[in-house]
Amino acid sequence: MKPRIGITLGDPAGIGPEIVVKALCEQEVQACCHPVVFGDRWVFERTAAELGLAAELEASGVFEFVDSGVVQGNFSLGQVSAIGGQAAFTAIRNAIQAAQDGAIAALATAPINKESLKAAGVEYIGHTEILAGLTGSPDPLTLFVVRDLRVFFVSRHVSLRKACDLVTRENLVRFTLRAYRELQRLLGLEKPKLAIAGLNPHNGEHGLFGDEEVREIEPAVAELQERGLDVVGPYPADSVFYRALQGEFAAVVSLYHDQGHIATKMVDFECTISMTLGLPFLRTSVDHGTAFDIAGKGVASPVSMVEAIKMAARYTHI
Amino acid sequence: MKPRIGITLGDPAGIGPEIVVKALCEQEVQACCHPVVFGDRWVFERTAAELGLAAELEASGVFEFVDSGVVQGNFSLGQVSAIGGQAAFTAIRNAIQAAQDGAIAALATAPINKESLKAAGVEYIGHTEILAGLTGSPDPLTLFVVRDLRVFFVSRHVSLRKACDLVTRENLVRFTLRAYRELQRLLGLEKPKLAIAGLNPHNGEHGLFGDEEVREIEPAVAELQERGLDVVGPYPADSVFYRALQGEFAAVVSLYHDQGHIATKMVDFECTISMTLGLPFLRTSVDHGTAFDIAGKGVASPVSMVEAIKMAARYTHI
Repeated sequence: MKPRIGITLGDPAGIGPEIVVKALCEQEVQACCHPVVFGDRWVFERTAAELGLAAELEASGVFEFVDSGVVQGNFSLGQVSAIGGQAAFTAIRNAIQAAQDGAIAALATAPINKESLKAAGVEYIGHTEILAGLTGSPDPLTLFVVRDLRVFFVSRHVSLRKACDLVTRENLVRFTLRAYRELQRLLGLEKPKLAIAGLNPHNGEHGLFGDEEVREIEPAVAELQERGLDVVGPYPADSVFYRALQGEFAAVVSLYHDQGHIATKMVDFECTISMTLGLPFLRTSVDHGTAFDIAGKGVASPVSMVEAIKMAARYTHI
Repeated sequence: MKPRIGITLGDPAGIGPEIVVKALCEQEVQACCHPVVFGDRWVFERTAAELGLAAELEASGVFEFVDSGVVQGNFSLGQVSAIGGQAAFTAIRNAIQAAQDGAIAALATAPINKESLKAAGVEYIGHTEILAGLTGSPDPLTLFVVRDLRVFFVSRHVSLRKACDLVTRENLVRFTLRAYRELQRLLGLEKPKLAIAGLNPHNGEHGLFGDEEVREIEPAVAELQERGLDVVGPYPADSVFYRALQGEFAAVVSLYHDQGHIATKMVDFECTISMTLGLPFLRTSVDHGTAFDIAGKGVASPVSMVEAIKMAARYTHI
């Protein structure tokens, strides 16, 4: 039986509804899951009609819809608005409820707008915070996935200098223990091999340029190995991601945002998917925004959304 | 008429001779240039014989050879040695002389070993230093190339923290002026579009996490534009390389080693080529080492060497 995958429309003023409608028309989405769409039916139907896909969608009859009932024409495409934020939030809240009730097995989300959320008076600043807050999950964890390359991030939205400061033995051990547990669950493996990237070029060449490898990362790896984890590294950052892509490692721990973002996106920009682990259910997401500038123009590519849905279906067991 | 491309064998104890012999047997190498090989004929012939390629090479008859006359069996594969360093150095020196005499139009080099160079009493620490020293070029410049993605580096072999320190307006302006001149020569264009990468994730989001973009990079770009250069940015590092690969920019200025190394190598690990600009002639190089561990085993891939020779031939006009 195909897994029931929740799909949110995202902010109605962005490209979310368009990429969901287009994705639902894709054979590979229909083949991999039973979609349950969360959002405003009015928005969904208008989008499908404007794209000329209404008949195709109806004929396929492959999806269910949970209507938020927030929007009925009272918003503008490409604009920040309270109603857009309210609609986006309601769809996510409904999807979380469905997941908790067992009505969906995993969730793929379309992009929302943080300013619209704020305008709507939503107390959370983004997707991950809503998911963490409403499910009572204190510590969600982001994993980037493209093909068989999987990347965790010790830090993300901090300056590069701050990211360097966060490369301490203690931080690395604590973070990697968490990441390893989630990786075990995700892959259903007891001892996946996890590699840690180096911080400095060529791993610092034994302290010649940068000593974080010698001082912090190597001791962290040794401690993790002593605890029985199959953790290796540090390996130079300009080869470790390539090696993982070739199948040598189940995942890589990236030491800063761009290290892992550049690596995944250069493999396949549109097919790089963000996963949120550490929740009661798996959530996948496109790695782009609402793209207000092209909303309603019919030109948005559904490739990322299709990939996010396929990834949700593929790893739905966790 | 096909350009005359010099090709050095590199350290005889490494995989250099093997990948050169294999590359010379490739149709695309024979088609793009007239190869002039610099190294020890004894090493070359033994390698070709061991690979079973001697007859094929001789039949092709497409190359010239400039014998260094250093090595005649008096070295061990996979070992650091003074004679290996001497052989490697002599081949480069002869190739430089040939380039200065107009006998070759560009140079593609196989890997050498820094310890062997040192053991041989060579005063230069590596390839680039030899080339700079013997040609009297004070300021050679490295460019990484893979497909149509070209990447300059503001800094390379310094710690990541030090690389952050080097992101100053003054440094960026000075570096980019040089890089731009070399890019104009390389592409034969008056106004190539050059993009500068950001340092912090999402360009620091207006100073929210990291202010180098606001404080240093944006003013540098403004100054460069005032000087008439088509320089743009900073753009977030996790999209700027992808955009360049799609043809939007002729090149990208990377702010640290791994930023540009990860970007190029994830596109195609083996076909990422290093170019040295700022010399009287173009030099290209494989981006791997002597691989002493697999020397003489016949398993080394010539893909990078083939690509380095093709790139030398393609840009031979500079």
